[in-house]
Amino acid sequence: MKKIYFDNNATTPLYPDLSPVAMECLSLWGNPSSVHWAGQQVKGRLREARQNFAQFVGAHSLEVIFTSGGSESNSIIISLYQKIAQAQILGLKHDLQLMSGDLSLFHGRSEFITTTVEHPSIKRSFEYLETQGYTVHWIKVDREGQFDWSHFCSVLSEKTLLVSVMAANNETGVILPLAKITKLAHEKGAFVHSDCVQALGKMELDLQSLEVDYASFSAHKFYALKGVGALYVKKGSPFHPLIWGGGQERHRRGGTENTLGICLMGKMAQNYLNKDLYNEKLSQVEVLRNYFEAEILRIIPNVEINHQNALRLGNTSSVILNDVEGEALLMALDVQGMAVSTGSACSSGASQPSATLRSFGLSHQEARSTLRVSFGWLNTIEEVDLFLRTLSEVVIRLRKLVIPSTLSKRDSKRPGEMKTSIGFYENGVKSEGGVNV
Amino acid sequence: MKKIYFDNNATTPLYPDLSPVAMECLSLWGNPSSVHWAGQQVKGRLREARQNFAQFVGAHSLEVIFTSGGSESNSIIISLYQKIAQAQILGLKHDLQLMSGDLSLFHGRSEFITTTVEHPSIKRSFEYLETQGYTVHWIKVDREGQFDWSHFCSVLSEKTLLVSVMAANNETGVILPLAKITKLAHEKGAFVHSDCVQALGKMELDLQSLEVDYASFSAHKFYALKGVGALYVKKGSPFHPLIWGGGQERHRRGGTENTLGICLMGKMAQNYLNKDLYNEKLSQVEVLRNYFEAEILRIIPNVEINHQNALRLGNTSSVILNDVEGEALLMALDVQGMAVSTGSACSSGASQPSATLRSFGLSHQEARSTLRVSFGWLNTIEEVDLFLRTLSEVVIRLRKLVIPSTLSKRDSKRPGEMKTSIGFYENGVKSEGGVNV
Repeated sequence: MKKIYFDNNATTPLYPDLSPVAMECLSLWGNPSSVHWAGQQVKGRLREARQNFAQFVGAHSLEVIFTSGGSESNSIIISLYQKIAQAQILGLKHDLQLMSGDLSLFHGRSEFITTTVEHPSIKRSFEYLETQGYTVHWIKVDREGQFDWSHFCSVLSEKTLLVSVMAANNETGVILPLAKITKLAHEKGAFVHSDCVQALGKMELDLQSLEVDYASFSAHKFYALKGVGALYVKKGSPFHPLIWGGGQERHRRGGTENTLGICLMGKMAQNYLNKDLYNEKLSQVEVLRNYFEAEILRIIPNVEINHQNALRLGNTSSVILNDVEGEALLMALDVQGMAVSTGSACSSGASQPSATLRSFGLSHQEARSTLRVSFGWLNTIEEVDLFLRTLSEVVIRLRKLVIPSTLSKRDSKRPGEMKTSIGFYENGVKSEGGVNV
Repeated sequence: MKKIYFDNNATTPLYPDLSPVAMECLSLWGNPSSVHWAGQQVKGRLREARQNFAQFVGAHSLEVIFTSGGSESNSIIISLYQKIAQAQILGLKHDLQLMSGDLSLFHGRSEFITTTVEHPSIKRSFEYLETQGYTVHWIKVDREGQFDWSHFCSVLSEKTLLVSVMAANNETGVILPLAKITKLAHEKGAFVHSDCVQALGKMELDLQSLEVDYASFSAHKFYALKGVGALYVKKGSPFHPLIWGGGQERHRRGGTENTLGICLMGKMAQNYLNKDLYNEKLSQVEVLRNYFEAEILRIIPNVEINHQNALRLGNTSSVILNDVEGEALLMALDVQGMAVSTGSACSSGASQPSATLRSFGLSHQEARSTLRVSFGWLNTIEEVDLFLRTLSEVVIRLRKLVIPSTLSKRDSKRPGEMKTSIGFYENGVKSEGGVNV
């Protein structure tokens, strides 16, 4: 059975170009802290990876700290600013040995601002801070993908210590207005962190122009390995380690470096330093996504696309298939070898609709009926066609099983009634009956 | 040039058996949290790896949390107990949402006990705690490798919150009396953590019989990959995450799992679940180490072996080559393709003698003249012979360059005067003139 992977926001496959590099790097097993040959041959590779990754995201190599991934990068910053807030609240002036940054910058600041649509590593960290008595302001993004500027501006003040806002959302792909948020936050003297995990490889990203103070990245959302990521710390920004070790990463993150993971992450960045090549990849994926959305709206009734008119990642499609249970749909597609994701976060066996989707303003049922289709650099138009064909069949079948409850106002067809002509690409050439992409 | 790697305490090469497994695992790139085929095929492998690793160290699989390595594992526990101590000191009864453990167990406890010979990730964490006003008692291990029981017993009390003692030291290989330390600490109601990073693959290890509450492990000291490790948390022990994420590791450690790293770590453990096979490996390495020490004492004058008569790892030899500068020796050996380590920790270009060696009672000069030779499962007796031949030549040369300052009392030969007959193994057969191993 042909397997189709349209869940590139969950993780990306190892890019084929990286396989031979992985083979080579497996043989470079030395400890980069060793001064002898075994260490030195890999130390140079780490340096190269750091330079390439830094350049790729618009940073200086000294501003890049390699970590075990996005969650660690996020936790480093929130944990640091929790300590700073605590010191401010308790009046402990010398509680932190910050590696850079002027303590007076924090004077009177102990409040946090984030959004309701962050990744769990941010969300849970801030929820924990709330249980500890810290003030956290949660800014909403609405159903149209609009950031609640009015709420943001009303809570942003000289008390604000840290603003943490993701660059792009993992579920609908909506892109947040990070540059403007950062500008306003800086005007009030607050620091800004951004979880850029979903942005890497999915949009243009230039930290220098974004002007954020910190940014988190993960390699496995960018066709490299799991267990490795990076934290960008803008030159001069306050810093304090979360993990202590043997002085690695200029004493900012202890532990022997994940040499294989870092080398592959750096290699992937290096391959796309040419922005034309990178943008070409982004465009290719966006073509697939747009084709998919045009087709699904055409052939399956009672479908809505979340954040369709907002600025969003070119690879992500979040589709409400009314009168379809997302979990059942996911399983039926999986049986056909098709990997996508629902809006539901399934943890410990209990299926709960995604809190993020709910926060956008979707009803419980809409959130449960949402399918996330996230395309990647290795996907093809033939896969989209095959997927659409299977999806429409499965949706017809599943809709027959339920009593229709939420027919879309803009489409009065009964569930199960479909347009039948689907334009398929075959061997890269669009067949007759096709639809403009 | 034949390269010889005798620095297995710094890191170990990827074990050849693991290469094909690495190839296979690189193709299992799914996110284990995904419910579709891409996630499920790797999820099963993670479960298997967890079971194998747990069994290998004498734990239950639910007691194993995979982390990014030893430093993270160490930092998780020290950070947790710092928070507990702070809550005790400030009287914040509900400051922690511990995932298990009864808060009353901590009542009145805020002191820490560790040793002067810990790895930097432990040492620096506790030094940081001291700057924050916490009480940390540092127990010495002396030149003979004896733990200072008298000091330990005098500071262990109902105020003791956490005792953190490594299983075996990375520089001399001395094994600490962990079982007895744990028994005494538990009698006083304190919790016990052990940095077992150097013990894995170098000695028999059974967490159940050691009875520690927490233990840290790293995969790259056990022939697997860098960037992955484990934390053992005994059932029922207090726990709180350091890294927040999407609920991985039963909500104890966020972040998409390092699937490749975990699978290889588990595979290595699985291969040696047969303890006879494991002990055979340990014995093979000990034979090399003992042969090396017998020969170096015979052929190079003015040599001492640190902790020679103490209980120590079978793979580690810490040798004082009096009147030789360790750094120069290291570089001269490196030129010959031979990778070993000095007692010096070389950081930011400044060569400082190892604080650990100094803490054992070695003079500044002795610490600077110490060479660490750590053998591994892939080394051979021929390598030991070749290394000894090269080492003796280099030592003669280097000793000619310095004015002898510290001739050993037990050997009055001038530096540079050597016994010349070295027994070499050739093709696995000991040649004439050899010495009993």
